Amino acid sequence: MKSQTRSTKTTAKKTTAKKKSLKTYTFKNSQKLFQRALKVIPCGIYGHFSPAPLIPATSYPFYAERAKGSHFWDVDGNEFIDYMCAYGPMVLGYNHPGVDQAAMKQLKRGNCITAPTREMVELAEQLVDLNTAADWAFFAKNGGDVVNQSIMLARAATGRTKMMLVKGGYHGVSSWMQGPGHYGVVEQDCASNVYVDWNNIQQVENAVSQHRGEIAAFLATPYHHPTFGDSELPADGYWQKIRQICDREGIVLIIDDVRCGFRIDMRGSHEYFGFKPDLACYCKAIGNGYPISALVGREELKTYAAKVFYTGSYWFSSVPMAAAIACMKEMKKINAPRVMIKQGKKLWDGIAKMADGYGYDMKVSGMASMPTLRITNDPSMMLHQDWCAEATRRGAYFTSHHNWFISAAHTDTDIKKTLDIADEAFKAVKKKYGDEY
Amino acid sequence: MKSQTRSTKTTAKKTTAKKKSLKTYTFKNSQKLFQRALKVIPCGIYGHFSPAPLIPATSYPFYAERAKGSHFWDVDGNEFIDYMCAYGPMVLGYNHPGVDQAAMKQLKRGNCITAPTREMVELAEQLVDLNTAADWAFFAKNGGDVVNQSIMLARAATGRTKMMLVKGGYHGVSSWMQGPGHYGVVEQDCASNVYVDWNNIQQVENAVSQHRGEIAAFLATPYHHPTFGDSELPADGYWQKIRQICDREGIVLIIDDVRCGFRIDMRGSHEYFGFKPDLACYCKAIGNGYPISALVGREELKTYAAKVFYTGSYWFSSVPMAAAIACMKEMKKINAPRVMIKQGKKLWDGIAKMADGYGYDMKVSGMASMPTLRITNDPSMMLHQDWCAEATRRGAYFTSHHNWFISAAHTDTDIKKTLDIADEAFKAVKKKYGDEY
Repeated sequence: MKSQTRSTKTTAKKTTAKKKSLKTYTFKNSQKLFQRALKVIPCGIYGHFSPAPLIPATSYPFYAERAKGSHFWDVDGNEFIDYMCAYGPMVLGYNHPGVDQAAMKQLKRGNCITAPTREMVELAEQLVDLNTAADWAFFAKNGGDVVNQSIMLARAATGRTKMMLVKGGYHGVSSWMQGPGHYGVVEQDCASNVYVDWNNIQQVENAVSQHRGEIAAFLATPYHHPTFGDSELPADGYWQKIRQICDREGIVLIIDDVRCGFRIDMRGSHEYFGFKPDLACYCKAIGNGYPISALVGREELKTYAAKVFYTGSYWFSSVPMAAAIACMKEMKKINAPRVMIKQGKKLWDGIAKMADGYGYDMKVSGMASMPTLRITNDPSMMLHQDWCAEATRRGAYFTSHHNWFISAAHTDTDIKKTLDIADEAFKAVKKKYGDEY
Repeated sequence: MKSQTRSTKTTAKKTTAKKKSLKTYTFKNSQKLFQRALKVIPCGIYGHFSPAPLIPATSYPFYAERAKGSHFWDVDGNEFIDYMCAYGPMVLGYNHPGVDQAAMKQLKRGNCITAPTREMVELAEQLVDLNTAADWAFFAKNGGDVVNQSIMLARAATGRTKMMLVKGGYHGVSSWMQGPGHYGVVEQDCASNVYVDWNNIQQVENAVSQHRGEIAAFLATPYHHPTFGDSELPADGYWQKIRQICDREGIVLIIDDVRCGFRIDMRGSHEYFGFKPDLACYCKAIGNGYPISALVGREELKTYAAKVFYTGSYWFSSVPMAAAIACMKEMKKINAPRVMIKQGKKLWDGIAKMADGYGYDMKVSGMASMPTLRITNDPSMMLHQDWCAEATRRGAYFTSHHNWFISAAHTDTDIKKTLDIADEAFKAVKKKYGDEY
């Protein structure tokens, strides 16, 4: 077991020493602003950005000042190579000139108007052209908006109520999505949920038998990327079997491609895994940070999408639509998912190899464009958390409890610098925890 | 009973004639774009913007090209004085220079970044300072986001499940909000809903007795503004009695100020009606069209707001926050609600008086800043719908089935021109329907 008191031990290997150490950051302005925030905002900062899971929180910047490309600067003037990418939305780099220009041009004409603009039609046409699951598209604001809508459509189309979900899957903050046991969630909101383990076809078959004719939808992410856990790709034939079962049982197959979308395959993440869903949900990367989400689906479900009443105050804003048109065009042009996977692979391979040199087993799971990292010989995660924090304090923003994101703007120079930082972070934890952990 | 065949009758009074008639618009480009849209978007245009409730739909522009101040222009080059204000968000005028400048300045620094910016803290401080129900603030994207969150908080705080709702009240598109009988809504999602009629205290008392200790929240809009119905202000003492009952029974009093917010009183619409809610929901007018919503509440509920997990992909975007700071500052400076009520009153009084001259009883209900209009001696609403359409075809965008919105940018010139248009629209329907309807 490791302990903070071991920080004086000096058993760390000296093999990588003698480079000039990187400056470690302080976060005085972040902390000052946070004290102000605590008075007027629950938690100071809420949700998955909350300082609570950033351990040790004092090693993290709480407030950004500006951003550009793959970097952001905090309110203390510290610069970070960002491996969270705004938790996904940043995909072409912060303030991408092409996307911002399209958005500003549209803003000058008008933002949120009583009627939509032609950009709504053009964006739908573009998505239908691009995404192999899309015969039509519908736009909203949050990922959760379109996931909720997909369930309403599946229920309207099937006349059934139950939803089959993968244990630990994240789909948003609605009561039924969070599931039983969370604050503010009441049991009856989750009464339609039928849970199965990821990659377990037998459980799906059992659930189908148990609730024959009652299951409206099977909802899952293209691969499993739970918070606080390793990511897991689909087993060979998994999605094809799920597709077969859904067809056989009249179940609507929905994929929540909110997080992976545009980070695996421009045609939709389902293409990479070789199947077609009935409905697919997008958000995050679709507009490089401009707020928009999309539901796409098969022709057969279009009438239900027309019948289910679904709308929101800002859903026809033309600025995020213009941004999304430009963003998807640019992503397609450079094949952004391929760039991200390539750059990601360089970095994670480098980190895993480096970890090995320090005697750590770094497990990298999920796709290289949004992998989950975990030092396996540290069951408490304390050392891993500390390693992430030490890297962040040196300028590579790593989070310990969540998958990371890479963008198409992460350069070879970024990756080289990140590897240097990762190395110093390994040294720091080795010094603190020694060989026993 | 009216009939389209009466359009040839010429019983219309000639008293107002002899001015040069206004040009009536055509919508060729809108219709062309709509035909394209139908192929790739369910309904072509969905939600409350859907052409379906715009009767006759062919009298309405479907797509906007640009907007400025209180006007927008459609894709056919037609200009409209806009009385829908993007269904609420436009409050200071489209492309308000101060708000857009603040947003663009922020955009140049960064939009949606991994960490929030200082604007989040400043916006919360501003709202706490301004709104008398706010000891803290939380920001999201949709009005429905914060209404859902308010219910989760009330449930977490009370350990109870049921929600008391006003029949016909609109709170968003979540399954439980839409209520039983709507497409995609399953009964169990509404199992916690306890409905009462607006302004009926006895029903509230009865529901409380029947479900003693089970009701987590009373949720209503500050005044009743149902779709397809007249608006109704609270009866004298209504809110004070509701407050008393909530205090006595330990029920969380939530107001959904999403639609009226910043159109009645800068301190929150509850101030105008003389009570204090425990939680209040804002959206629409808060950022003059930039996508942001807010939940504010009493100190006692802050810990629950911290405990309930609630987040979204774009909720920390700094651009809408910078816009909201500038928007609220400007609204406060000019006392925007007072301006809107004053301008609204001029117009609705003018329209009602004019209707009278044509033998129509125009009922104007709700607040003057977002009134509902209905010709009462037309039970089928056909004549009223036609009157709205005739006005729209002449350049004043009127909707027949929904309250209207006025902004602080509607000028006296706008109102004078709108009255001229309304007059021509009255003439047109008089000519079509005659004296019998």
